[in-house]
Amino acid sequence: MNQHNLKHPHKELRALLGKRFSTDDTVRDAHARDASYHQGALPDAVAFPKTNAEVSEILKICAKHKIPIVPYGTGTGVEGAVVATEGALCIALNNMSSVLRVSQDDRDATVQAGVTRFQLNGHLMDLGTQLHFPVDPGADASLGGMVATRASGTSAVRYGTMLDNVLGLTVITADGSIVHTGSRARKSAAGYDLTRLFIGSEGTLGIITEITLKLTRLPEAVAAAVCAFPTVAAAVDTVIKMMDTGINIARIELLDELQMDAVNKHAGLDYEVAPTLFFEFHGSERTVAESSEIAGKIAAAHGSGDFRWATDENDRKRLWQARYDSYYAALNRRPRSVGYVTDVCVPISQLAECIAKTKTLLAKSNLVPSILGHVGDGNFHVVFPLEPNNKDELAEAQQLSHQIVDIALEMDGTCTGEHGVGIGKRKALEKEHGEAVDLMRAIKHALDPLNLMNPGKIFL
Amino acid sequence: MNQHNLKHPHKELRALLGKRFSTDDTVRDAHARDASYHQGALPDAVAFPKTNAEVSEILKICAKHKIPIVPYGTGTGVEGAVVATEGALCIALNNMSSVLRVSQDDRDATVQAGVTRFQLNGHLMDLGTQLHFPVDPGADASLGGMVATRASGTSAVRYGTMLDNVLGLTVITADGSIVHTGSRARKSAAGYDLTRLFIGSEGTLGIITEITLKLTRLPEAVAAAVCAFPTVAAAVDTVIKMMDTGINIARIELLDELQMDAVNKHAGLDYEVAPTLFFEFHGSERTVAESSEIAGKIAAAHGSGDFRWATDENDRKRLWQARYDSYYAALNRRPRSVGYVTDVCVPISQLAECIAKTKTLLAKSNLVPSILGHVGDGNFHVVFPLEPNNKDELAEAQQLSHQIVDIALEMDGTCTGEHGVGIGKRKALEKEHGEAVDLMRAIKHALDPLNLMNPGKIFL
Repeated sequence: MNQHNLKHPHKELRALLGKRFSTDDTVRDAHARDASYHQGALPDAVAFPKTNAEVSEILKICAKHKIPIVPYGTGTGVEGAVVATEGALCIALNNMSSVLRVSQDDRDATVQAGVTRFQLNGHLMDLGTQLHFPVDPGADASLGGMVATRASGTSAVRYGTMLDNVLGLTVITADGSIVHTGSRARKSAAGYDLTRLFIGSEGTLGIITEITLKLTRLPEAVAAAVCAFPTVAAAVDTVIKMMDTGINIARIELLDELQMDAVNKHAGLDYEVAPTLFFEFHGSERTVAESSEIAGKIAAAHGSGDFRWATDENDRKRLWQARYDSYYAALNRRPRSVGYVTDVCVPISQLAECIAKTKTLLAKSNLVPSILGHVGDGNFHVVFPLEPNNKDELAEAQQLSHQIVDIALEMDGTCTGEHGVGIGKRKALEKEHGEAVDLMRAIKHALDPLNLMNPGKIFL
Repeated sequence: MNQHNLKHPHKELRALLGKRFSTDDTVRDAHARDASYHQGALPDAVAFPKTNAEVSEILKICAKHKIPIVPYGTGTGVEGAVVATEGALCIALNNMSSVLRVSQDDRDATVQAGVTRFQLNGHLMDLGTQLHFPVDPGADASLGGMVATRASGTSAVRYGTMLDNVLGLTVITADGSIVHTGSRARKSAAGYDLTRLFIGSEGTLGIITEITLKLTRLPEAVAAAVCAFPTVAAAVDTVIKMMDTGINIARIELLDELQMDAVNKHAGLDYEVAPTLFFEFHGSERTVAESSEIAGKIAAAHGSGDFRWATDENDRKRLWQARYDSYYAALNRRPRSVGYVTDVCVPISQLAECIAKTKTLLAKSNLVPSILGHVGDGNFHVVFPLEPNNKDELAEAQQLSHQIVDIALEMDGTCTGEHGVGIGKRKALEKEHGEAVDLMRAIKHALDPLNLMNPGKIFL
């Protein structure tokens, strides 16, 4: 779409939004890319709506002039879902950042899509509630972005993913309709589950503007520990056994020996350089004590080293900071690198073998990849620190990633546990879902016949 | 559709299925209705496929001849979702009743759609696993039917609904395609969530033939109790407070004083005739003891009577049998009656008021309605025992049901917590979801352009 075509809609958008519509190069550049290796692209303009009505008007203008749109939250995604298509209008949601309501009795809240999870949790603390929103993808992502990518992270083993923690949405569809899905009821059998359809739709079916979220009571007690294992298989078997006992594990993270080495170097720590599990237990004082004791016994039975415990909040934060920083620690293995991250997820019984096969593949690579994973869910990431703009390195990482996806699909797994499809996993999606992708396309076409909603994402 | 039109497809279906295709009156009559007041209707014929390939062939024949189909599980639904449309072929799934695989390590199983939940749980016990499938709608429903209606029941407060317990599906779509959704991975961000779209679609988007389910470890300890309260509000406040403490409640059921009276008379019991909560706690010996103790204190602080405990399995079964039989107990208040059941669900903070307003409405009725509910979820049922074929009584119950739905929708609730839309809640769905129903229709049309998949259900 050339500038001539855009003149008229730009005028309409400016009339609607005033200074909250921008074609400034700096603003466009700030909305050109996500947190990954994916090549950025400048949107033609950026709109900063504040209300559902404004988003609706924007989409009506875009439909009239056939302008593609790309929604933008915090840009913390890693599969290129927010990278602009040629001629696109970026709809930035950071001005839609109000917590609209909180109910202590119902343990739920309604927020605008631009509210980040730290903001919401801070708000809940300020209100004096004992509630929090537990889904934790690491980054301080916007809740709208987390819905759009079906995010999860370290706490999903106990609290579930975005799939499990949303009661309803307000979505503006391609024709500008303002649609409310779900309700504040804890469960409903009222027709098709549009809420779950929009969760993970990556902006391709509509713009999510408001979210009603389930909240969770803050645990009375929390204990965290780190524990080294002789092999990845011993660590995974420990986790399988722990899950089978039904103890209250809130997080179980696996870092391989290379990743532990990176973490030690990055954070000046002295953990053993071995496959390592990071644990966190949530519950009452009694259940946390009980769970920790059982966990210790199971780990020891699988040849683990000693548990390094942290029950004090600061110690715990320091310990988990090492886990949170591990992506950057991995990148630090090569200064000034950009990250390429895989994201397969397999049944936990297959996880040790999947990692073993992956490590065999990686042994032939010069890209110094390391492995970390949400082992309770069977989800792990290989982090490749790549030289920016080095096409050979990128091609090698992509080739390895495809092979890792093949391994996971052989095991009834998925090509993406939590990062989404975006641009990077479109081929893998076809491989994984085959004919089901035709159904997805049919739904996309039914809801967005002009293909203006984040085109080029999810589907090839 | 008249017999002349059907001759040719009947020949094709008989060639495909042999004796597993029937136009016998007795067979048609056995598949004409569900467990509710809804008027039955004879399907033109009944097919009993055994494999995905056979279902696929059936749907291809039906598409070619434009024959509508209605899937049938166990007929234990209550909103008429299995009642045949004029000229329809009923696809009965009871011959697809194999448990295809179980994984102890992954705590999952794949079953054919006709497997019932008792069958699956019996199979898991026979295998010597410590696993069960925890969703409990009361009836021994087929798992396919439970998926199709997004069923839940008494244990949803802890284990969730069908929405939360399915990893993937095999679905045969209107054109006969065999489509696999989801995977065996515990989480996935791979494209649109088709699994959740088919859960609750009531046969209107395709025939669910196989289901991969999450399984749950059997609790180490279980304790059950019954406790009377001075008012419904005191009972609900007790539950809100209990949920807020995060204790391990697996079931919390509310029966009002009329329902308790019915239960006493039906089962020869001597419970106090007052609003009553039935509790069940699951966990380790320690956590169950801890939870029970806290629950007792909270209830007492809300003016409850004493807890009547049952920890022995037989005592517990007897106690809960009273709850399970309460629907029949309610019907027994009028001999030879048929049941009309409402199903609203509201945020729990609104539940006491919603029930109070409902009781005010019901006070004017001569239909002896009683109330029971899954109070932890904010879901309750009014059971009207109606004289069969009495149009005035049905009209009165329907009128009251619409008013109860209005009360619930005012409170951000839903018209159906777990029974589905079927025939009975189609108007209520329009009222609840407004423009969102247009999206549902667009999806329906995209996946079933000839409107052959259970037509006349969900949509007016």
